[in-house]
Amino acid sequence: MPTTAHTFQYVFELLGTGFFAVSGALRATDRARPDWFGVTFIGFVTAIGGGSLRDMLLGSYPLVWVSDPWFIYAIFIGIVVARIGYERLLALRRTRLLFDTLGIAMFTILGTEKAIALGVAPLVAAMMGMFSAVMGGVIRDVLTHREPVIFSKEIYATACIAGALLYVLLDRCGVPRELNFCVSGAVIAGVRIIAVKFNLSLPTFPVK
Amino acid sequence: MPTTAHTFQYVFELLGTGFFAVSGALRATDRARPDWFGVTFIGFVTAIGGGSLRDMLLGSYPLVWVSDPWFIYAIFIGIVVARIGYERLLALRRTRLLFDTLGIAMFTILGTEKAIALGVAPLVAAMMGMFSAVMGGVIRDVLTHREPVIFSKEIYATACIAGALLYVLLDRCGVPRELNFCVSGAVIAGVRIIAVKFNLSLPTFPVK
Amino acid sequence: MPTTAHTFQYVFELLGTGFFAVSGALRATDRARPDWFGVTFIGFVTAIGGGSLRDMLLGSYPLVWVSDPWFIYAIFIGIVVARIGYERLLALRRTRLLFDTLGIAMFTILGTEKAIALGVAPLVAAMMGMFSAVMGGVIRDVLTHREPVIFSKEIYATACIAGALLYVLLDRCGVPRELNFCVSGAVIAGVRIIAVKFNLSLPTFPVK
Repeated sequence: MPTTAHTFQYVFELLGTGFFAVSGALRATDRARPDWFGVTFIGFVTAIGGGSLRDMLLGSYPLVWVSDPWFIYAIFIGIVVARIGYERLLALRRTRLLFDTLGIAMFTILGTEKAIALGVAPLVAAMMGMFSAVMGGVIRDVLTHREPVIFSKEIYATACIAGALLYVLLDRCGVPRELNFCVSGAVIAGVRIIAVKFNLSLPTFPVK
Repeated sequence: MPTTAHTFQYVFELLGTGFFAVSGALRATDRARPDWFGVTFIGFVTAIGGGSLRDMLLGSYPLVWVSDPWFIYAIFIGIVVARIGYERLLALRRTRLLFDTLGIAMFTILGTEKAIALGVAPLVAAMMGMFSAVMGGVIRDVLTHREPVIFSKEIYATACIAGALLYVLLDRCGVPRELNFCVSGAVIAGVRIIAVKFNLSLPTFPVK
Repeated sequence: MPTTAHTFQYVFELLGTGFFAVSGALRATDRARPDWFGVTFIGFVTAIGGGSLRDMLLGSYPLVWVSDPWFIYAIFIGIVVARIGYERLLALRRTRLLFDTLGIAMFTILGTEKAIALGVAPLVAAMMGMFSAVMGGVIRDVLTHREPVIFSKEIYATACIAGALLYVLLDRCGVPRELNFCVSGAVIAGVRIIAVKFNLSLPTFPVK
């Protein structure tokens, strides 16, 4: 029976899904002039790609959006919002960064929790959490024929894996779930925002 | 026990698979000079990619071509046909368009039916039908390092999703399966052929 | 209960996985300057991509690296080795070719055996063996935005499919497993090495 906490989480997941669709739609239009189908398709893939890959790697069926069409409606709403607010959203660079950061933080922790619940090892669960947050963007970039952004940007996927590893560690130490969610999510968001603000990158793999 | 209708459908599925392999082989050679392995590999991916992705998303195992090698033989035959008839097939632009259109119409409806039979929601079933028809081509384009054709062409995937949505709607209204198959398939083929003839596209997602 | 033969095989699989990670890391750095995250991610995908795709196509869960973190440790060790020995490894072209060749030979046969054990038809099992060996590299190339190497190189995937078909044939004829492993693996390695030495390619699919 759904508790208030569950309802909150479900609403946040729908919001996160819709937001990822907005972000995919904006990215789809920054270099090409796709039609409505193309933008919707890219928004859809961006929003559900990471979680779907995680569940297919874990063999956890049915996929979330297959069993609950509300995730698809959230994506459609996101596409419409992206169209209506197009100029404004493009201008609001900081707001988008904030939402994107909250989105990847939430998707990473939720993905990690789901993998733990399926009984996989902590290290694998942390990887699955990171995949949930970033692989939708990777699939989007592959389909739109670009270099995936995770290889070129400031610290991004690294923040996710760091927060996910912290989550599995604190989980092992018996830290309560709600506290752990907030602490580990805040670490992801904090690392990401500091990295963007100070333009921090990981050291390159030093060649020659 | 297989009825005449089932036998017909099976034969058509094999024909469609072989035809998609021909189409993949022609596309693989339009810009590069792959060897026999490369052409066969691309023909194979084009032919089975969409249906395999649908079944992996739905968790419906075993995949069709894994349990029935006749689909693989159909692909090999398609590759040989592509080689023997190469010049002629390249010249027959209209014939290829016709076959391609019949192919995507059939694969869309069969994919939609399979998803319905697995119990998913109508909207998801329609998406799965569209994926069955177009994702083989998307995977082919990604592997051969090109912009996927579904983002640049006249109305293509949109025709599939429209026909698939019509199918699930008529199915809900109790229209008999054979009639529905013909009507919805004809809508896909009709929309596609009219779009090509009059060079119709969807409106672009209007950016400034 | 693990026998000596099983232990040997397990150790070889870990070694092969680590080696594929080294090879992925070297390839990731030959054109770009990725950071440590990027190199590790690419090494990981190269090492586990082929086997994961095979298992997802066959619906064989859990994936090997999901249930046994030692495969992930082997990849991390491979990345560190790639860093420490970077210049030396780049210079040792012949040694890398030898290891790569032994690696694809072993992964092809192990993948074919796994598919046979899951009960698929011989032709499909041979394809799954080839996928195990080469698809990690294909996914790596797609993610790093390049033309996949299997379409441009001397005989490579073709050697794998040839050896895999020989394996399923000899298996049908009742040849003992250990002997078959060595003979079919040697055919893959031999074909590959001869192809590189004499710069052999398959005939191109003859267009015009």
